[in-house]
Amino acid sequence: MAVGWKGLPALKPVAGLRLGTAKAGIKKPDRRDLTVLELAPGTQCAAVFTKNRFCAAPVQIARRHLEAVAPRYLLINTGYANAGTGEAGMRNGLACCAGLAELAGCGANQVLPFSTGVIGEPLPVERIRAGLPAALAALSADGWALAAEAIMTTDTVPKAASRQFQANGVTYTLTGMSKGAGMIKPNMATMLAFVATDARLAAPLLQQALQAAVKLSFNRITVDGDTSTNDSLVLAATGAAGGPELTADTAAFAAFSEALNSLCIELAQAVVRDGEGATRLIAVEVAEGASEAECERVAYAVAESPLVKTALFAADPNWGRILAAVGRAGIDDLDVDRVRLYLDDLCIAEAGGRVADYQEEAAKTRIAKEELSIGIRLGRGDASATVWTCDLSYDYVRINADYRS
Amino acid sequence: MAVGWKGLPALKPVAGLRLGTAKAGIKKPDRRDLTVLELAPGTQCAAVFTKNRFCAAPVQIARRHLEAVAPRYLLINTGYANAGTGEAGMRNGLACCAGLAELAGCGANQVLPFSTGVIGEPLPVERIRAGLPAALAALSADGWALAAEAIMTTDTVPKAASRQFQANGVTYTLTGMSKGAGMIKPNMATMLAFVATDARLAAPLLQQALQAAVKLSFNRITVDGDTSTNDSLVLAATGAAGGPELTADTAAFAAFSEALNSLCIELAQAVVRDGEGATRLIAVEVAEGASEAECERVAYAVAESPLVKTALFAADPNWGRILAAVGRAGIDDLDVDRVRLYLDDLCIAEAGGRVADYQEEAAKTRIAKEELSIGIRLGRGDASATVWTCDLSYDYVRINADYRS
Repeated sequence: MAVGWKGLPALKPVAGLRLGTAKAGIKKPDRRDLTVLELAPGTQCAAVFTKNRFCAAPVQIARRHLEAVAPRYLLINTGYANAGTGEAGMRNGLACCAGLAELAGCGANQVLPFSTGVIGEPLPVERIRAGLPAALAALSADGWALAAEAIMTTDTVPKAASRQFQANGVTYTLTGMSKGAGMIKPNMATMLAFVATDARLAAPLLQQALQAAVKLSFNRITVDGDTSTNDSLVLAATGAAGGPELTADTAAFAAFSEALNSLCIELAQAVVRDGEGATRLIAVEVAEGASEAECERVAYAVAESPLVKTALFAADPNWGRILAAVGRAGIDDLDVDRVRLYLDDLCIAEAGGRVADYQEEAAKTRIAKEELSIGIRLGRGDASATVWTCDLSYDYVRINADYRS
Repeated sequence: MAVGWKGLPALKPVAGLRLGTAKAGIKKPDRRDLTVLELAPGTQCAAVFTKNRFCAAPVQIARRHLEAVAPRYLLINTGYANAGTGEAGMRNGLACCAGLAELAGCGANQVLPFSTGVIGEPLPVERIRAGLPAALAALSADGWALAAEAIMTTDTVPKAASRQFQANGVTYTLTGMSKGAGMIKPNMATMLAFVATDARLAAPLLQQALQAAVKLSFNRITVDGDTSTNDSLVLAATGAAGGPELTADTAAFAAFSEALNSLCIELAQAVVRDGEGATRLIAVEVAEGASEAECERVAYAVAESPLVKTALFAADPNWGRILAAVGRAGIDDLDVDRVRLYLDDLCIAEAGGRVADYQEEAAKTRIAKEELSIGIRLGRGDASATVWTCDLSYDYVRINADYRS
């Protein structure tokens, strides 16, 4: 079960957007595995995709379609990632788009496809196409919770959240969902995430807001350091709430950005909370760096260290492993005597060794928490960066050793 | 048990060098945990050390002593790494050197200290000093096997090997030992390794030969991507075999270098074979790269991927995970259509997907082997690089979650 899981929060419908799901038997019987999102005409979309060079066929198709025309439908299947499938993968992805377009009466390039699941096996196009009528018949503005469930793979819980803000006398809504679990170190976007708002924004500003939000959220999480071939994040703005278009340098856009950042951080953290085998959520907070880039490098060195992650699983305050990870993060002129290490509020190491009044029990109390922070102060400047990660448990090995069997 | 373990090979004594061990009760009772190496006067030493900024006190001391004077003794303890111990760590390390120097009648700076074990806890100086007389009394040219055992921590088997070569009418010997198991991604040297030869070489040429050997061996292995604070590798040349000094650009030096490279590769592989929880030894062989650096980057991305390593543990030919790791290795202009993927001799993927005649059973047979290669041809040039790694098993988590308890 995901760390700190208390059930899905209340999900607000986003005017102008409907979601439908179906049990298409894509890989396993009797499982919601097919999702359609319908966007009202005039909806603006922004998106970020994986930087993995072996990006999946649906990523290539979605990118191409987005450049050509405003999308009307998002089509998401689980079970098969349609990655590592060569030319056949492109044909199969396009065939699914065409199938939906025919039923919905739009152009095939107005459909963006997304796939998640096993890499390298052919997409079962016929089963997906056969499931489309049921998914379309189920379209509803209240479909978020079922959709969040239908996009899961090794996820143990669905992930979705909402935000609202007031501006221009209008109450605007943002709702989003994500999935993750494994192969998680997004580079520009997580495995799959979809966020929608009923505010009206022009596509370039929407893209700008999305990239700023991603930098603080999906690009700051890691489960296993592996960047997926299928990472995709789409932000759709339907404009259906009414009111004027939100433009740059206004209080309304600032409120929108704040709500978007907060929503993306919650959705990204939800991916880590449900990381494969995760039992703890850890914020690695690096401060007093000379640059944000070096803070990020240190944070990732700690957040991805298998030795640190197994110690966290064991609730062992083995701070020496944390120092060792900081020391190999590639800051050549790091003055180790200035580095201080914290577990939550407790300083446990400084000047290259543990603090004089170190109390193992106090450290153990901190590290045994289900959610905690590792604070690293570099003593070099004012920059900072936070990366969220989880621990490395037996279950991580079990899940990934068994995945295809 | 280490992958492919068939017992220690025959270890040839190196004239001019004696080894002695003792059970000093440093951390656990009745365990060989203290080792002394005695070098004949005139022995030349070369060494490489960790690049971790939090390098341990013994590393700092050994570096300083090596710069000052030719060493006569190496002193190695297990149980405590004497890393993350601040100023007290320096005092404790020096106190151990002084204790040995007093008994042996040399200068304290003619002793190089090496420590391995838990980080951050104080070195038990008195127990180490109390064990020294027994270790000195045990000094013997035939002490390699016991010493290889005495430097183990979470290692399950001792690691040592010998090479011999003829030149100048003399039979020269090289013998070495290493330890590893966890926190293994050496950067200039592995956790602890000691190699000795009875050939005579000047210190600068010895250092050059060592660095060339390390580049192909200890710097090409990874167990968990964590670079230790204590990595140290020392190469001692006693000159006791007789014959002239080996000089650069001679057939004798070439024979020496070949024997040294081969010995270092065997010792480095032995560390991976005994990697924490390892059940397989995998050579990640990247070829057809534009540069050696990019081949290394790709090889490490694959060799360190937890998803690849868990699939290897499961003997699952999940080649999609390998492609995904190649794709995120940071080669921005990688043409994925030219990349080919092999398990041993079997080509399993090309042109972004699996090969047309892909046979899962044939792939399974290859990946189920205890020792195998993952071949990656980038189709970009003539450069190549090989990195050795092991799989990621339940036991890796168990060992590292239990280490301090």
